[in-house]
Amino acid sequence: MRWAQGFIAVDWGTTNRRAYSIDREMRCVDEFEDGLGILSVPAGGFHDAVAEIRARLGDRPLLLGGMIGSNRGWIEAPYVSCPAGLDDLVAGLVWPEPDVAIVPGVADDAGERADVMRGEEVQLIGAIAARTIPADCIVCHPGTHNKWVAVGGGRIAAFRTVMTGELFNLLKEHSILADLLGPDAEPGEPFAAGVRRGLEGDGIQAELFSVRARVLLGKARREDAAAYTSGLLIGGDVRIGLSSGTDGQVIVMGRPELTELYAAALGIAGQQAVEIDGERCFLDGAIKIAERIQ
Amino acid sequence: MRWAQGFIAVDWGTTNRRAYSIDREMRCVDEFEDGLGILSVPAGGFHDAVAEIRARLGDRPLLLGGMIGSNRGWIEAPYVSCPAGLDDLVAGLVWPEPDVAIVPGVADDAGERADVMRGEEVQLIGAIAARTIPADCIVCHPGTHNKWVAVGGGRIAAFRTVMTGELFNLLKEHSILADLLGPDAEPGEPFAAGVRRGLEGDGIQAELFSVRARVLLGKARREDAAAYTSGLLIGGDVRIGLSSGTDGQVIVMGRPELTELYAAALGIAGQQAVEIDGERCFLDGAIKIAERIQ
Repeated sequence: MRWAQGFIAVDWGTTNRRAYSIDREMRCVDEFEDGLGILSVPAGGFHDAVAEIRARLGDRPLLLGGMIGSNRGWIEAPYVSCPAGLDDLVAGLVWPEPDVAIVPGVADDAGERADVMRGEEVQLIGAIAARTIPADCIVCHPGTHNKWVAVGGGRIAAFRTVMTGELFNLLKEHSILADLLGPDAEPGEPFAAGVRRGLEGDGIQAELFSVRARVLLGKARREDAAAYTSGLLIGGDVRIGLSSGTDGQVIVMGRPELTELYAAALGIAGQQAVEIDGERCFLDGAIKIAERIQ
Repeated sequence: MRWAQGFIAVDWGTTNRRAYSIDREMRCVDEFEDGLGILSVPAGGFHDAVAEIRARLGDRPLLLGGMIGSNRGWIEAPYVSCPAGLDDLVAGLVWPEPDVAIVPGVADDAGERADVMRGEEVQLIGAIAARTIPADCIVCHPGTHNKWVAVGGGRIAAFRTVMTGELFNLLKEHSILADLLGPDAEPGEPFAAGVRRGLEGDGIQAELFSVRARVLLGKARREDAAAYTSGLLIGGDVRIGLSSGTDGQVIVMGRPELTELYAAALGIAGQQAVEIDGERCFLDGAIKIAERIQ
């Protein structure tokens, strides 16, 4: 009953968290974002961390999604298997203390398949429940680990993760390409050239070295290398995502600076991309889950 | 004339170097290896570094191969273009001071192609000149950056670099897979399973994430993850290398601990792999080049 009076929703990731105060009208009335991801919280420190969130946003029940439910988080909320819908997430909630619920992750573990998500499921279920997306569609959810999700019958039916964001960051910070990958990627012609090459699918591991060789041999401009490399990785990612087929349309859900790049790449691949703000979907998902808590 | 009395050959890489003293009979009579790669030598310090090598191995002319000729080395020895043979390397020698020659790298820059090598060319030309390998063959040269080389008419005809070694190291040291990739990879069944998956070619960026998911979901053993991941990357590498076709046999040249893994992967791909010790080929190449210096 207390949840109907309002609650706090937290998207609690590895290195960041976003917290939202939801009032009894199910409107977001306050929020904050900071760098206190789960890795910043000392062992045994989550009770105090939650108390501190309440001190900032009000003494309300908390719904926590994301890596907070992983084996590196507070307590582990076991994955629910695909197909997973709103009811499955609610049934899988884990309660580390009264009035604090952690949303389970979702696993695609059918047959030989092995994939996991934590955090995206709240956004996906929110988008489905709020009818922001159809009950049957393909969703691309870019991030550190991009997720290609088949939504079927209003549930998460199957999905596959591509390590694009993490690979780009590894290359940018630690690889032989590091000195070339400084600028932010923009969806211009060098990005498009990388996408076209990545869509051809002839081995990203070889194409990455050619980024450096093209500059050394004067065949590409140094200042275009970051956008080209981003295009290469995203093009390869889109090739993998589309390999299971679509009806010509893909929902791209997430942070606008990433959905823009994926939408551009999907356009080059001949798909109609529909960009959706992931933050709004997270709030919708959190509210739908909270409404089911008795 | 002085070179005929013996010389010193140095394989001078980014982080390591190996130096060999060659006598007038063209036999290696002394050698050392240390961690003083080109990045360890301060600006303007190569003259002293070379004097120190002579103090250890004798006052002889020096032939330097590898990254010492790159834009991060002593002075840049411009790439010679494919097809490149012994005569081309000799014609491209650069002399930073009397009695010190730097071997040029090789570029594959035909049409849209863009690839470069520095260091492997001495081994390749040595193996060809010493008839260790045929005048027409496919060579796989594993390392930080694996090279697939088409040897034609006794010259380096074309080649393609795959970033396998560097990618594995990035993943092992900095990625979400880091805690799984501790053990050295051995060519057993988990390695073979990774190779088979990598040969299928359905997107290494997605398969890498599944390494973690398989362990989280209890579908693979944590202690097998390093060998499986190594197999995945090498299998994907072999798929790229074989995409241009072979006659069923591939020469694998390099350090034995790496040639063993690639030979195993090539066997799974149905190829006959012939392992060749890269160090011997380097000495053969250096001697053949020195013999041409007047």
